[in-house]
Amino acid sequence: MRVLILGAAGFIGSHLAQALCRRGELRLADRGAQAISELVLADNRIIMNVPDPGLHMTVRTVQGNVCDPGFIEALFASDVDAVFHLAATLTLDAEMDFSHGLEVNVHALMRLLEQCRRQSRAPAFVFASSISTYGGSLPDTVDDHVAQTPQTSYGTHKAIAELLINDYSRRGFLDGVGIRLPTIVIRPGKPNLAASGFFSNILREPLVGQEAVLPVSRDVRHWFASPRAAVGFLTHAAEIDTAQLGWRRTLSVPGLSATVGEEIEALHRVAGDKAVKLIREEPDERIIGMVAGWPRNFDARRAASLGFTAESSFDEIIRIHIEDELGGRIGG
Amino acid sequence: MRVLILGAAGFIGSHLAQALCRRGELRLADRGAQAISELVLADNRIIMNVPDPGLHMTVRTVQGNVCDPGFIEALFASDVDAVFHLAATLTLDAEMDFSHGLEVNVHALMRLLEQCRRQSRAPAFVFASSISTYGGSLPDTVDDHVAQTPQTSYGTHKAIAELLINDYSRRGFLDGVGIRLPTIVIRPGKPNLAASGFFSNILREPLVGQEAVLPVSRDVRHWFASPRAAVGFLTHAAEIDTAQLGWRRTLSVPGLSATVGEEIEALHRVAGDKAVKLIREEPDERIIGMVAGWPRNFDARRAASLGFTAESSFDEIIRIHIEDELGGRIGG
Repeated sequence: MRVLILGAAGFIGSHLAQALCRRGELRLADRGAQAISELVLADNRIIMNVPDPGLHMTVRTVQGNVCDPGFIEALFASDVDAVFHLAATLTLDAEMDFSHGLEVNVHALMRLLEQCRRQSRAPAFVFASSISTYGGSLPDTVDDHVAQTPQTSYGTHKAIAELLINDYSRRGFLDGVGIRLPTIVIRPGKPNLAASGFFSNILREPLVGQEAVLPVSRDVRHWFASPRAAVGFLTHAAEIDTAQLGWRRTLSVPGLSATVGEEIEALHRVAGDKAVKLIREEPDERIIGMVAGWPRNFDARRAASLGFTAESSFDEIIRIHIEDELGGRIGG
Repeated sequence: MRVLILGAAGFIGSHLAQALCRRGELRLADRGAQAISELVLADNRIIMNVPDPGLHMTVRTVQGNVCDPGFIEALFASDVDAVFHLAATLTLDAEMDFSHGLEVNVHALMRLLEQCRRQSRAPAFVFASSISTYGGSLPDTVDDHVAQTPQTSYGTHKAIAELLINDYSRRGFLDGVGIRLPTIVIRPGKPNLAASGFFSNILREPLVGQEAVLPVSRDVRHWFASPRAAVGFLTHAAEIDTAQLGWRRTLSVPGLSATVGEEIEALHRVAGDKAVKLIREEPDERIIGMVAGWPRNFDARRAASLGFTAESSFDEIIRIHIEDELGGRIGG
């Protein structure tokens, strides 16, 4: 079985590549468990830390631009059995460069879907959608029946992708599943300028003895899952029987609805007063304004009934970060 | 002021062209009433019955394919002040030719939006969306908060267009309004194979003494407006102050929710027993199945509060057809 990850150098993509190497197989609903013979990792960045494939699998890394039609074509030179599409420009990038956002998030996706359609056998197609397909004036709890009115180009592109994947799947050109990922915490690496970055920063930095800035108030509520849960969503999405999805191929997956205050309380339980004192409150009107339009809670019962699972406390999310990223140790 | 109608040879497009010639001006919210100096009628078909423009207006007809990038570019050789985009492949066409549907309904639209973005001044952009952006298991009454889960490629393409127009408008590249048109009755011409054609056929044919086939039961409920109302929606959409629309640029406009039985009762009141007896009931399982997933009623209070109006009875819809298409006379 040939499996393709687009966006494999990214945070979630690299975790997914490692997980697929560990598993060595995928159990697609229409053909049972099969060994992954080739795992193709594609990205426009250099892929570091290529995972060890074990004896019976080949891992191939390919660097190229999804906007280049020839690059996408080459990836489909032989049939692909499962595609994980994680490549996208992020929110602030798409706001800054409108054309580039459209090119990567919509036009490249459309060419990718056409490649799938040209295959003799429809591939499994797992798409990383986002809760940012929702925006504006939302109910306290968002379920799969709420209208999607994204407030960013990125959210718009993800909502368009959901529609296309639905239609290509309805026509039998691919067997698609979209999952609307919660905000993933704790992201490793340096603090970045992503508007949602502070949710990670205020845990990650204090856990290694560094200061972090909190730009919003503690009663801000949002929707979270760990990187480990994200990888679980993606592999599970490839393996569920999509007949159960009916005409709605994209799901809001489970997550944890919590306030920033609850997040900080969990940090306190895990790392004590010293860590919490490293959080400096510095209100930022621009970020406060953006966050006000974000969803706060989801009703993910539909996904839960299909076997998707996530963490139920921030203590658990912090513990996963300490295990997976810090080698089990905390402190500065 | 330069005004462009794409899809001007169609049923609604040709009515709109006539209405704009009669009015001679448009009152765009941001610049007050202005005379239409040039009206460009574009279609891939030959435009028949070109309306009389009066003294101060030029009407130009252009035949070409919206899928041809050069054709779209040429239309924007000088700045356009208002665009009415009605060009699309219809439901059954898009189901039969998947690529062509995508090309006309999505790719051509995307090039059109890019042309608007390149202008120094953002044009008013009125888009004919459709109630077929809704489908599947719907509430009895559909408002603007219901999730759009289209069941056809055509409905998918229209929903994608709504998202793009929202985002281009948010960014100030155009001043867009989408209107989800009800099923328009009574369509003139011969009975056609469109799945919704029977709603028109069972009135239009008996009104001129011809037989018509009813393929569904009389308790089927659906959502209607007249061609005259459709033209009113489009011109009003160009003229409303879009600041009132907030982040949702597309509206479900008012219509009449009625059953086939109520439709036939109205025919009876207008044209008597003789006309009603020309309707032959011939259940068609394929059409019954499609119709079951169609919306039955809309809550259009948002559009009504913005001044959009439609008919409130089938008697009125039939009367409009007799006035506008039959020269005031009925009978075979």
